[in-house]
Amino acid sequence: MLNVNQYFDGKVASIGLKTKDLPATVGVMVPGEYTFGTEKREYMTVISGALTVKLPGESDWKTFSEGETFIVEANQSFDLKVEIDTAYLCKYE
Amino acid sequence: MLNVNQYFDGKVASIGLKTKDLPATVGVMVPGEYTFGTEKREYMTVISGALTVKLPGESDWKTFSEGETFIVEANQSFDLKVEIDTAYLCKYE
Repeated sequence: MLNVNQYFDGKVASIGLKTKDLPATVGVMVPGEYTFGTEKREYMTVISGALTVKLPGESDWKTFSEGETFIVEANQSFDLKVEIDTAYLCKYE
Repeated sequence: MLNVNQYFDGKVASIGLKTKDLPATVGVMVPGEYTFGTEKREYMTVISGALTVKLPGESDWKTFSEGETFIVEANQSFDLKVEIDTAYLCKYE
């Protein structure tokens, strides 16, 4: 039925869904530092909390708060710092 | 680590988190009809998709879309109709 996944020893969990335009996941990250790799372009929107991200090719960290979205192109990797339980919606294109 | 739950034979799944003010869950519901009971006041916000709800004591159904929130008091039950995979954030007070 629903596709539920856990990563980083259960510190990140996600649930898959089909939105009206793209496949997506909603998920939660507990505080920590993570590196993710993309297979498709990803549109990451913060729902609750904040994500501090170092985007591919950038040297500065940037914090995205509730309602803000960042984009990572396909086949890239990006680093994240999380300081509070954070919920996100990620769309894949 | 993260508290992941599934309900209604896997048609609803949720992940728990602590937001800066209240405990919450983010979750997904696939199309279907559901009746939920509350133990605490619930603030349900639609993240993606839509929820058509008959709130306690009401006879009309009302549809809430992305970004919209409805509130259900503690110890109540409410009915939901879901026509597209819908992601939600629920805060408990």
